[in-house]
Amino acid sequence: MAHTIKEKAKLLARVRRIRGQVEALERALESEKECVEVLQQIAAARGAINSLMVEVVEDHIRTHVAGPAIDTEAQRRQGAEELIDIIRAYLK
Amino acid sequence: MAHTIKEKAKLLARVRRIRGQVEALERALESEKECVEVLQQIAAARGAINSLMVEVVEDHIRTHVAGPAIDTEAQRRQGAEELIDIIRAYLK
Amino acid sequence: MAHTIKEKAKLLARVRRIRGQVEALERALESEKECVEVLQQIAAARGAINSLMVEVVEDHIRTHVAGPAIDTEAQRRQGAEELIDIIRAYLK
Amino acid sequence: MAHTIKEKAKLLARVRRIRGQVEALERALESEKECVEVLQQIAAARGAINSLMVEVVEDHIRTHVAGPAIDTEAQRRQGAEELIDIIRAYLK
Repeated sequence: MAHTIKEKAKLLARVRRIRGQVEALERALESEKECVEVLQQIAAARGAINSLMVEVVEDHIRTHVAGPAIDTEAQRRQGAEELIDIIRAYLK
Repeated sequence: MAHTIKEKAKLLARVRRIRGQVEALERALESEKECVEVLQQIAAARGAINSLMVEVVEDHIRTHVAGPAIDTEAQRRQGAEELIDIIRAYLK
Repeated sequence: MAHTIKEKAKLLARVRRIRGQVEALERALESEKECVEVLQQIAAARGAINSLMVEVVEDHIRTHVAGPAIDTEAQRRQGAEELIDIIRAYLK
Repeated sequence: MAHTIKEKAKLLARVRRIRGQVEALERALESEKECVEVLQQIAAARGAINSLMVEVVEDHIRTHVAGPAIDTEAQRRQGAEELIDIIRAYLK
């Protein structure tokens, strides 16, 4: 899925940070931290997932929709329809 | 902006419906309707704006990013970068 | 719904600004402005509706959920359940 | 933070499911799964975090804002202000 080695490393670093945030959230719930603290941790994890999402969507647009290396109109159209499905799911 | 007459008519119908919703909301505030009722009207207007947004974004993708009629790679790239800016503003 | 005259004036000013934004959006579509410009106007209107929403929700919390003037536990509970319904509709 | 043992167990089950989703996402990136598949996994994790958020907010409202066991108006007001901060962060 990542379209270059550099991009792959970047996305993996992001997802591992999110895993760390979710593990910290688990510990916070186990040790019965304050409501507000837990909510701030949830908000941080959610923000990190949104940022990961945006990065992967950008990557998808540059490679599968607008990419100069796309061979056929049919492939480009498929990339566009996949993108539209994702945007619909997120914005509606 | 609308890329066909049919599409233009559809978007205008949507935006006029939203105007009607906002006018109804104004009347609800003026006549001091219940909180909950006002919140439901706001939610409805917000949902309608989100749907309009999704429709215009789809239109943008099909015409300015994946469109078979785009002349140059530079134009396609510009359409893609505009799209990415919009998605960033919405999802982050 | 607005719980003081000052609050009512503030909310009405907000909703009239939103109406102005939606009317501008309608003109932009009619005069076939650029896609990107239209999307920025939609984003602005959406942001304004979100802000109005937050303000009304705050008002609801202060008056109908945490308000010192609430007479009975049943009323407070009702205010809380209404609030939860709204938050569910918005965050899910 | 969880206000009953049952509620705590429920929240922990949710957060562990999210951890599983994030770990699956990590494996998907490592094994270079398709863009679209990765995006669907991100969307699922995001949905699960939103649901967790809603549940904790509900819990906060019932216990710290509308709770019949709150001792003083000052405590109730503090719970309300914390809630408003969270809603602002999420809806704006």
